[in-house]
Amino acid sequence: MNSPPAMQQPIDFYFDFSSPYSYIASEWIEAVAARHGRTVRWHAMLLGVAFQAAELKPPVNHPLKREYVLRDFARSARMEGVPYTQPEPFPIPTQNAARVYWWLHETRPERAIPWARACFRAYFARGVDLSDAQALSTLATEFGLGEGEAQAVWNDPVWKERLKRVNEAAVAAGVFGAPFFFVDGEPFWGNDRKAQIERWLSQGPF
Amino acid sequence: MNSPPAMQQPIDFYFDFSSPYSYIASEWIEAVAARHGRTVRWHAMLLGVAFQAAELKPPVNHPLKREYVLRDFARSARMEGVPYTQPEPFPIPTQNAARVYWWLHETRPERAIPWARACFRAYFARGVDLSDAQALSTLATEFGLGEGEAQAVWNDPVWKERLKRVNEAAVAAGVFGAPFFFVDGEPFWGNDRKAQIERWLSQGPF
Repeated sequence: MNSPPAMQQPIDFYFDFSSPYSYIASEWIEAVAARHGRTVRWHAMLLGVAFQAAELKPPVNHPLKREYVLRDFARSARMEGVPYTQPEPFPIPTQNAARVYWWLHETRPERAIPWARACFRAYFARGVDLSDAQALSTLATEFGLGEGEAQAVWNDPVWKERLKRVNEAAVAAGVFGAPFFFVDGEPFWGNDRKAQIERWLSQGPF
Repeated sequence: MNSPPAMQQPIDFYFDFSSPYSYIASEWIEAVAARHGRTVRWHAMLLGVAFQAAELKPPVNHPLKREYVLRDFARSARMEGVPYTQPEPFPIPTQNAARVYWWLHETRPERAIPWARACFRAYFARGVDLSDAQALSTLATEFGLGEGEAQAVWNDPVWKERLKRVNEAAVAAGVFGAPFFFVDGEPFWGNDRKAQIERWLSQGPF
């Protein structure tokens, strides 16, 4: 058999561009994977779809938890050495940025992860509102896309449908929050599962 | 001034006897605190009161999240080297065990934390149902309390009232889940904030 050993499967990384813990994880997942000879498959999705399936609400919609997580987002970013400025508005709908991600993934795959990073950093470090069509268009042209190109993509039924299928597949796989990882089929939820993921990658199942 | 420096304040540790992540944290918090010259104040509380204030439900009451956390409870325990067997029924009401905790805390303080450990380990390692009056009475006599003594305590309005005040104070302090810690007034929620707590204790605020 020429198939690679099971331990070398790519890591699946599900995220929403509006999720602070996803942003933080996006800054370490590639380095962690690379240290263990793994690659990462990035899956832009809509957390709202997963929340609906799991009967959950954003943490900032809960009394008490809201104040805590607003503090913890920034503290968790500092813990990882990642720049973080709480954006307003927050959270935001991110389907347009996600559709552009999947379009790049299909048509210019080497540009897809850089686009994801550009979106995360624009929102969480510079306060660029990804849900604002004008702001997102400007970000896309700064990124090197043609004038109006990103907007044409996010209005295209093909990429709307693609994102819808990703969301459905994520829920079918058990995703109810973000970031959400699968390593050799094992599910890990949260930026705070980094140590468990590292242990799994270095020592195998535990 | 003879007051100790602010950094030597005790760590406040809020927990519910039915919370798996509280159980895991209860097995490391004293050692972590001691390494940094701190003591720990243990606060037995009812998570249901905090959930109500924060409009939350137990994680196992959510589709998708239920399957994940049942896997993660045991995996997180293995990560810390703590024995864990998923108990049934789960979760359970734990007011009786908590009232006995507060009674010991007031009358035989050196026995309070050992009682907390005995309850956690009985439920999460041996499946002893702490919500069953007979099972809890048996645990109490094994622990060295007199026949019927624990039952008299948990039926006593004094200890009912004490627990009620603890729950109210916890919610007033912002507690919405368990385990919940305050270190120098800084809130940390979850067994998975161990690394952040250790960093705070060793290097101060970050």
